Amino acid sequence: MSQSETWKTVGILGGMGAEAGVELAHRLITLSGARTDAEQIPCLLYTNPCIPDRTANLLYGGPSPTEELVRSLQVLIDSGAELLCIPCNTAHIWHETLSERVDVPIVHMIRTMAANHDRSLGERVGVLCTTGLVRFGLYQSACAEHGLEALMPTEDELEQYVMRAIYGSLDEGLVGLKGSNKGETIVGLMWEAAQRLIARGASALWLACTEISLIKEELTALSPVPVVDAMDSLAEELVRQARRARA
Amino acid sequence: MSQSETWKTVGILGGMGAEAGVELAHRLITLSGARTDAEQIPCLLYTNPCIPDRTANLLYGGPSPTEELVRSLQVLIDSGAELLCIPCNTAHIWHETLSERVDVPIVHMIRTMAANHDRSLGERVGVLCTTGLVRFGLYQSACAEHGLEALMPTEDELEQYVMRAIYGSLDEGLVGLKGSNKGETIVGLMWEAAQRLIARGASALWLACTEISLIKEELTALSPVPVVDAMDSLAEELVRQARRARA
Repeated sequence: MSQSETWKTVGILGGMGAEAGVELAHRLITLSGARTDAEQIPCLLYTNPCIPDRTANLLYGGPSPTEELVRSLQVLIDSGAELLCIPCNTAHIWHETLSERVDVPIVHMIRTMAANHDRSLGERVGVLCTTGLVRFGLYQSACAEHGLEALMPTEDELEQYVMRAIYGSLDEGLVGLKGSNKGETIVGLMWEAAQRLIARGASALWLACTEISLIKEELTALSPVPVVDAMDSLAEELVRQARRARA
Repeated sequence: MSQSETWKTVGILGGMGAEAGVELAHRLITLSGARTDAEQIPCLLYTNPCIPDRTANLLYGGPSPTEELVRSLQVLIDSGAELLCIPCNTAHIWHETLSERVDVPIVHMIRTMAANHDRSLGERVGVLCTTGLVRFGLYQSACAEHGLEALMPTEDELEQYVMRAIYGSLDEGLVGLKGSNKGETIVGLMWEAAQRLIARGASALWLACTEISLIKEELTALSPVPVVDAMDSLAEELVRQARRARA
């Protein structure tokens, strides 16, 4: 297989959601600094709709995504990926299990976010993420390791605002971010949750679900405190780790 | 391998340029009509920077892209792709060769564009594409097959405007579309070429290079005649062909 001399091949396991995976691939291209096709970062993006929904498994006992996640990562490895990532914060609940099952490192977007936080933005961060991720405490523990305090949405805020904006609501005929709806109603719902985190003392807002990353610009325009996107943090870390050491 | 019951897995051979590949993946997601992750079209996108430049081969005797194109398509097939595409109009000069070398159909974006042209937009179309593609006459012959007349940029217009906008110019320190520059200068160059096609009687403008597809909105805003994008045409055809026949 032909290989770039500058970059390792990055494997992106997408589909969680689909647009988030494509958005990460786009941010990598922009961050690479390439001026020609030949200077780009080689990248494989696998948008797999067959991965059982993470939240449905965590909250409602739906099928486990583990085996399909492992199989999909293996597809990327077999195609030449030398560095892996999963642009879905919630899927990181399975990070340890997956890392044990495959032979290529999976960059951990949650730990990366906490490790690279700009201290000038303060140490109390408001974390917009899914219910499953709040309950499993991955952001809380990653923040604690780095001396940061993670302010999380309450169960009520998650249900009323965050999860409704991400998944939409069949009863209400509301299409959510997973259905590519980034309209005013959806942004408004997410902003309700964000405002409450800011009112409780967050000095920065973390977008800690890759669906929420898709409305980064809209939330940034509304927010009086800085907005930091976990997908940007992941993209920057991937560019760093993808660069081959000089011989 | 798990499979979607609704869709075949689409393989996109990207990297020609990189942003064009990602853009096609994005248009597929939007066109799918999916409201949940599970409803999306399964898709593999391979951004390969190691494919020798098509134009450099055609015009300046640079290395042939054939073997790397075949190898890359095979990577997509081995990963499960059931339908292939190459979001690079110029690469279609190799379409016949590639189709003979791999066992999965490669949707032909140039023939698709000509076959699906909306007749209400007229039958004289102005085709913005690369020098290599003009010389090999793929758009001209596809148009002739469907009773359309293809107006092509002259060699001088290609050199002065189209190719300079796509590749930039090292001498002038100008970064082109391949370096993710979509600024005014670049749009202005492409618009110079477009205006000349319109002046010669084009009743519609065809964006027939996937780098030019990246400034579709800017060109549409400037143009007095309708702008039709070959990448949109390809995306629509992929969605049609990807849908599985009901058992």
